[in-house]
Amino acid sequence: MSLKPLGDRVLVKPDEAEHKTKSGLYIASNAQEKPQRGEVVAVGAGKLSDSGDRLPIDVHVGDTVIYGKFGGNEVKVNGEDYLLMRADDIYAIEE
Amino acid sequence: MSLKPLGDRVLVKPDEAEHKTKSGLYIASNAQEKPQRGEVVAVGAGKLSDSGDRLPIDVHVGDTVIYGKFGGNEVKVNGEDYLLMRADDIYAIEE
Amino acid sequence: MSLKPLGDRVLVKPDEAEHKTKSGLYIASNAQEKPQRGEVVAVGAGKLSDSGDRLPIDVHVGDTVIYGKFGGNEVKVNGEDYLLMRADDIYAIEE
Amino acid sequence: MSLKPLGDRVLVKPDEAEHKTKSGLYIASNAQEKPQRGEVVAVGAGKLSDSGDRLPIDVHVGDTVIYGKFGGNEVKVNGEDYLLMRADDIYAIEE
Amino acid sequence: MSLKPLGDRVLVKPDEAEHKTKSGLYIASNAQEKPQRGEVVAVGAGKLSDSGDRLPIDVHVGDTVIYGKFGGNEVKVNGEDYLLMRADDIYAIEE
Amino acid sequence: MSLKPLGDRVLVKPDEAEHKTKSGLYIASNAQEKPQRGEVVAVGAGKLSDSGDRLPIDVHVGDTVIYGKFGGNEVKVNGEDYLLMRADDIYAIEE
Amino acid sequence: MSLKPLGDRVLVKPDEAEHKTKSGLYIASNAQEKPQRGEVVAVGAGKLSDSGDRLPIDVHVGDTVIYGKFGGNEVKVNGEDYLLMRADDIYAIEE
Repeated sequence: MSLKPLGDRVLVKPDEAEHKTKSGLYIASNAQEKPQRGEVVAVGAGKLSDSGDRLPIDVHVGDTVIYGKFGGNEVKVNGEDYLLMRADDIYAIEE
Repeated sequence: MSLKPLGDRVLVKPDEAEHKTKSGLYIASNAQEKPQRGEVVAVGAGKLSDSGDRLPIDVHVGDTVIYGKFGGNEVKVNGEDYLLMRADDIYAIEE
Repeated sequence: MSLKPLGDRVLVKPDEAEHKTKSGLYIASNAQEKPQRGEVVAVGAGKLSDSGDRLPIDVHVGDTVIYGKFGGNEVKVNGEDYLLMRADDIYAIEE
Repeated sequence: MSLKPLGDRVLVKPDEAEHKTKSGLYIASNAQEKPQRGEVVAVGAGKLSDSGDRLPIDVHVGDTVIYGKFGGNEVKVNGEDYLLMRADDIYAIEE
Repeated sequence: MSLKPLGDRVLVKPDEAEHKTKSGLYIASNAQEKPQRGEVVAVGAGKLSDSGDRLPIDVHVGDTVIYGKFGGNEVKVNGEDYLLMRADDIYAIEE
Repeated sequence: MSLKPLGDRVLVKPDEAEHKTKSGLYIASNAQEKPQRGEVVAVGAGKLSDSGDRLPIDVHVGDTVIYGKFGGNEVKVNGEDYLLMRADDIYAIEE
Repeated sequence: MSLKPLGDRVLVKPDEAEHKTKSGLYIASNAQEKPQRGEVVAVGAGKLSDSGDRLPIDVHVGDTVIYGKFGGNEVKVNGEDYLLMRADDIYAIEE
């Protein structure tokens, strides 16, 4: 099963908040804060302008993106956590 | 009796919050949270643009959709609970 | 006397919140909640677009409609209670 | 002296909240609530659209109108109370 | 010195809240309320529409106008109090 | 060093809140209130309309302007206090 | 790794809040306030207008800019703090 975002929405797989330490343990880098970085896994067809045209979306599947702390709605797909957010809530692409 | 949603509204039958256990009992998977997944059962004709045209709606009858926790207004049709929501409050389609 | 709603407004006669019991008594089905279902008794000429055109209204006199809990303003016409609401506050038509 | 409302504003003479009883006394029908019914005594030239055209107003001098409980600003003209309200705050015309 | 209001702003000289009594004393007619009536002493060139045109203003120098209780910003010009308000905050012209 | 305001922003040097008394002392005329009068020292190129044109700004370098009590953001340039405000927050020009 | 801001967003490297004293110590100039001055290190392609055109951005890489106290979202790139802000949140360019 997969999700097809609607309009100007984008499906993002957030980075894990855990990092493997040298000793092999997983620890949360910052338990207080949710990650603000993730990978785009699906992109909507774009928002409809008032004249009925689709406005293109600036991110593409596979992009590593930076987004706001409160960006997006959490959804679970096949047991994994994803975020569905509007393209405009994505701040930047890592290059 | 059935409902014809108006404008950019969509009628959604939310998934049951109950799941049958092996022993046959129905239990709520998460009593605190309402389901955010359902099936589209009726779609409006689309919102009127300021120039008088209908803007098409991206979901269709039969689509399984994901929507926000606070999306939609509850209505009872023939004793069953439905949600009437704006098409833009639907985040994604399951495929 | 009758009311002609203005612009995109619609006059709705809400369903009675009372139902006659077998013993003949009228009881409110749900004293806490106002009905969200009613019949359209008058429809405005439509909202003026910025270019001066009337945008058509999707409901017609006689339609049974579903509307929001907080939709509309109560008015009394000839001693009976009606609601004056904007057409966009009507969610759906019963068919 | 008279008032010429500006733009999409309308001058309304609210109904008296008092009614003469058979015995000749004047009593307020509902001391808690201001009247929501009145007569249009002057109408503005209409709001300017962004393209510089006047958008017509749907009420005319002499119309008996129904308006919201919180509609309009009170003004005193020649010692009498009037309401200056935007045309869109008028819900309906009595016919 | 004089003030030239900008855009859709208008300079208004509010009526004095004081009235001379027969005995020659000045008393405030209503100490609680600021006057809502004044004379237009200067008018801006009009707001720029998005297409770069000026939208005309409906009041002119010398008009006696009625405005809202909270309309405008107080400014002192040559020691006297004036109000600078947007033309849309003026409700009506006295005739 | 100087500042070039962006878009519809204007750089204003506020009047000093202090006045020299005859005895040569500087006293604040009104310690509670910030000055609302100043001189325009730089003007942006104008806001971009949705069609990509610059909308002209009605104030020019050297104008003495009146602005709102809460208008603008304080910035320090070469140790002196200035205000950066949107052109629309300027009410009038002194002439 | 570097960041490509999206739409009308701009990546800014804020000035250090610390200054080296003559004795070689770093002290914060004002511990209460974040710097409001920085250097533009990356600029988005511009916001899409409703007609699908990109609206140009008035700042360029290398510009020293002044921005609001609450402008932008903090992001860490290669261990250093940056701000991602909308171009309109930048007030002025230092020249």
